[in-house]
Amino acid sequence: MIFRQLFDTDSSTLTYLLADGQGIAVIIDPVLEHVETYLSLLDSLKLALRWVLDTHIHADHITGARAIKERTGATTAIAGNCEATGYDRQLADGEMLAFGNESIRIIATPGHTSESLCYLWRDRLFTGDTLMIGACGRTDFQNGSSTEMYHSITQKLFVLPEETLVYPCHDYKGRRVSCIGEEKVLNARIAGKTLDEFVRIMDNLNLAPPKRIHEAVPANLLGGGSPEARQN
Amino acid sequence: MIFRQLFDTDSSTLTYLLADGQGIAVIIDPVLEHVETYLSLLDSLKLALRWVLDTHIHADHITGARAIKERTGATTAIAGNCEATGYDRQLADGEMLAFGNESIRIIATPGHTSESLCYLWRDRLFTGDTLMIGACGRTDFQNGSSTEMYHSITQKLFVLPEETLVYPCHDYKGRRVSCIGEEKVLNARIAGKTLDEFVRIMDNLNLAPPKRIHEAVPANLLGGGSPEARQN
Repeated sequence: MIFRQLFDTDSSTLTYLLADGQGIAVIIDPVLEHVETYLSLLDSLKLALRWVLDTHIHADHITGARAIKERTGATTAIAGNCEATGYDRQLADGEMLAFGNESIRIIATPGHTSESLCYLWRDRLFTGDTLMIGACGRTDFQNGSSTEMYHSITQKLFVLPEETLVYPCHDYKGRRVSCIGEEKVLNARIAGKTLDEFVRIMDNLNLAPPKRIHEAVPANLLGGGSPEARQN
Repeated sequence: MIFRQLFDTDSSTLTYLLADGQGIAVIIDPVLEHVETYLSLLDSLKLALRWVLDTHIHADHITGARAIKERTGATTAIAGNCEATGYDRQLADGEMLAFGNESIRIIATPGHTSESLCYLWRDRLFTGDTLMIGACGRTDFQNGSSTEMYHSITQKLFVLPEETLVYPCHDYKGRRVSCIGEEKVLNARIAGKTLDEFVRIMDNLNLAPPKRIHEAVPANLLGGGSPEARQN
């Protein structure tokens, strides 16, 4: 079993590489600027890439999905309930994605964006911008909804075993991993909060828009671009 | 694969239960008062217990090692370089302990106490009171040494892959898991610190003695007691 967590300092994005015992691999939430790093890593670890998964249409970085697919032949995938046209496969809640002897369960968790998914592999949950360490993603654009976020986190994620490891798509404080049991108790936005309290917290975040949203969202609907395409 | 993290609220102790695919199990740092819970869990998960491991001679709670052994026939173990007489097996640095198809690597990490061990299973490191989340164990009794602690953490733990999960024996703030990459950057006592700076921090903690040290240490040298023995 191989598990790597990679970090993009520009966008504080955490990207994940996993592989089964036979070297069949999956990448989750790759960043375009690091595609060469991922390819080198796949090569040095002798991995064959089966899937490139995005948890949602990112607004803060451009996905490396299409660029990796062009170089490896892996299949790209994202939720089906969105306008993205640049992915090979549309995923739905409850679906299982196989890679080698392993599989990933798709958990639809609308809230940060309407198409946000979490991916569950063994006891590791890749939460995108849904459940983050001590926090959660914002809900004020891309069909986000605080009410849906509350239900997604409390009814679909907090019901998982407490030992389930939480691996988010971002952390801005250097943290890397948490678990469901910890978030149920310590998450500043949602632990012990009612729906009304949570919605009020989210309504009052007053965050600036993501800097790259006008560049990132259109590119990500196409599965991201190749580095060459961006230079043109 | 089974992995459970259990918590004792009195001493803030984290206890771990692991098992391979065939149901051969290990318990790390059990607390005497919860032995019945562990036995129920082993029963309900249909596990056969192979090992009961303590990371060190605890000063804040009484180990459930001997009580569990008496009820299950599991083998108890602790580091060889101490005066404990109540364990079946003495462990040394670098040794591998097999359970079913899995194995645990013994890493000697003196510092909190002279006999402190860490246990590495797959990519999970059970750190006892050596490396804790954002902190480390105190070094002011039981042959503790700040200098040894510094070398143990920086030379034997921080050299592990960054994704290695850190599961301590205690956390007093509700946290449950961290990883080596995170501790290398965020650990308030040791991240980026020189040996001299670390020793100065440890010398100035000014902690009260553990409340139960005079009860716990003698009992733990004998592998802990059974609940019956404590009542007598």
